[in-house]
Amino acid sequence: MYPHNMEELKEITIGKLKEKGVQLKDIAELVYDLQKPYFQGMTMELAEESVMAVLRKREVIHAILTGIAIDEMAQKKLLPEPIQSIIEADEGLYGIDEVLPLGIINLYGTIGLTNFGYLDKEKKGIIKELDGRKKHMVTTFLDDLVAAIAAAAASRIAHANIK
Amino acid sequence: MYPHNMEELKEITIGKLKEKGVQLKDIAELVYDLQKPYFQGMTMELAEESVMAVLRKREVIHAILTGIAIDEMAQKKLLPEPIQSIIEADEGLYGIDEVLPLGIINLYGTIGLTNFGYLDKEKKGIIKELDGRKKHMVTTFLDDLVAAIAAAAASRIAHANIK
Amino acid sequence: MYPHNMEELKEITIGKLKEKGVQLKDIAELVYDLQKPYFQGMTMELAEESVMAVLRKREVIHAILTGIAIDEMAQKKLLPEPIQSIIEADEGLYGIDEVLPLGIINLYGTIGLTNFGYLDKEKKGIIKELDGRKKHMVTTFLDDLVAAIAAAAASRIAHANIK
Amino acid sequence: MYPHNMEELKEITIGKLKEKGVQLKDIAELVYDLQKPYFQGMTMELAEESVMAVLRKREVIHAILTGIAIDEMAQKKLLPEPIQSIIEADEGLYGIDEVLPLGIINLYGTIGLTNFGYLDKEKKGIIKELDGRKKHMVTTFLDDLVAAIAAAAASRIAHANIK
Repeated sequence: MYPHNMEELKEITIGKLKEKGVQLKDIAELVYDLQKPYFQGMTMELAEESVMAVLRKREVIHAILTGIAIDEMAQKKLLPEPIQSIIEADEGLYGIDEVLPLGIINLYGTIGLTNFGYLDKEKKGIIKELDGRKKHMVTTFLDDLVAAIAAAAASRIAHANIK
Repeated sequence: MYPHNMEELKEITIGKLKEKGVQLKDIAELVYDLQKPYFQGMTMELAEESVMAVLRKREVIHAILTGIAIDEMAQKKLLPEPIQSIIEADEGLYGIDEVLPLGIINLYGTIGLTNFGYLDKEKKGIIKELDGRKKHMVTTFLDDLVAAIAAAAASRIAHANIK
Repeated sequence: MYPHNMEELKEITIGKLKEKGVQLKDIAELVYDLQKPYFQGMTMELAEESVMAVLRKREVIHAILTGIAIDEMAQKKLLPEPIQSIIEADEGLYGIDEVLPLGIINLYGTIGLTNFGYLDKEKKGIIKELDGRKKHMVTTFLDDLVAAIAAAAASRIAHANIK
Repeated sequence: MYPHNMEELKEITIGKLKEKGVQLKDIAELVYDLQKPYFQGMTMELAEESVMAVLRKREVIHAILTGIAIDEMAQKKLLPEPIQSIIEADEGLYGIDEVLPLGIINLYGTIGLTNFGYLDKEKKGIIKELDGRKKHMVTTFLDDLVAAIAAAAASRIAHANIK
């Protein structure tokens, strides 16, 4: 038995994201920008709705809560060395911060994958902001998770709107 | 027993790419552009060398030869319907043209993955050119394979140069 | 625009599988065996229902139709060499027949992945039968696709039944 | 710059595995059993050598050190709720413990993937032992990581021995 209420878990996850300075609206803006060129009827409401749908999935919630927990442990310097230093410095070749989001984007097909790669490299909107906060806060996993949620939500819209 | 000479297979693969209008130099340019911002010592020679190293791997060769074979079958209208029409039109939601390259990029870690997503979306250099040739030629798999080879070769350099 | 009716595509896909000697019931049996140990209420009806739900997804349909088309081209010896020989012989190190199913199993989370690996190695039921038909028929992609559909359908049940 | 000595990181990683009760020999036994049926010349020496080669890769080391760190944090009850309870209980649908190993097995091609799925489900040797220790010790990530190292090492041998 899985002893957690999914609706509750979703609310906790949204709360955690806000606590780290990430509003659903910030993620929805990334989704909007990704899908606008392909879908005329694109709106911010649709983008937000899609982000919410992604955040309802168990594996998505698990990936986000795990990634944020690692960031928090690293921030509090509680991780054993040498992984504490590697994660805290967000080494370019760490790589695991891009593996964890696969638990999110894989669920939404290959469009999710290319959107994720693009967001991860272009660093726009909230992802850029998170990058700027790196001096005060460990966001090694957080920025990649946000990119993955946006990429998944955009892929979801692409699949829904081409019937 | 695997009854094929790997060196020979590599040469055949390079020949196939050339036949489709893709020179190793075209792929190396994508690699150079991807790595230049991160690695001062980056040169076109290094980029070409890395492309060659990627093309020596069995699974890479298999992915390329399979993808090009599907494109050719589609061009000759030999595939059974409805997959013939779907592949020939390179439907935005086909998706399998982005699954096959996973056989290439996965081998080079997560940097390969994000580089692939970026190239697939930005469509620069030879990838843009291939896009322009779509009217005369089926390149449904070819452009994604080229992006994957470049992404893999760039990832290889990233891992080699940060010791 | 995606000019294909999804319901029609699903029927064509089921027809193609039958044509190759794979009944939905055969796949449902694999699903039943995978989930029975974890879920008391498991029935063949539930297994068949889940297989049908998997076969309704666009990327699943695309993966199946593409893989079966490659098998058919190889059977008719229409592929260019050397990939014709490699696919026809179902070389142990070909690997691309296990990449294509990622388009199916990734959509259903990590349980799908481990179930796929297990089925692919254990070769039970219809997968074993397909293996036996290899002398008369190219089933290089078909057996892996069947394993992927079953793994996905089993994962779907696991997620649905642990609320 | 990546400020860590790879040789040192490898030694630390091997030390961590031993600390958790996993000897290289235990992993090598899984590799031997996986490859013996396909490769007559298989020996325990070859298996150990291959495990060592896998443990030399940066992304492999990062995945192992990250997974073991999460297990340790969970064991010490330092993670924030509700992810503390989810990881501590090793919920069947947690899933992220199977995502992290993708950072290891993807590097070795598709044979690695199917071997991983098989080991993860069959739970033989050291993996079974780790399962038995779950009452006293959090091994949520550890058992999947061990399966991934063995799967990767087996895949490496398969590719090396079929020239």
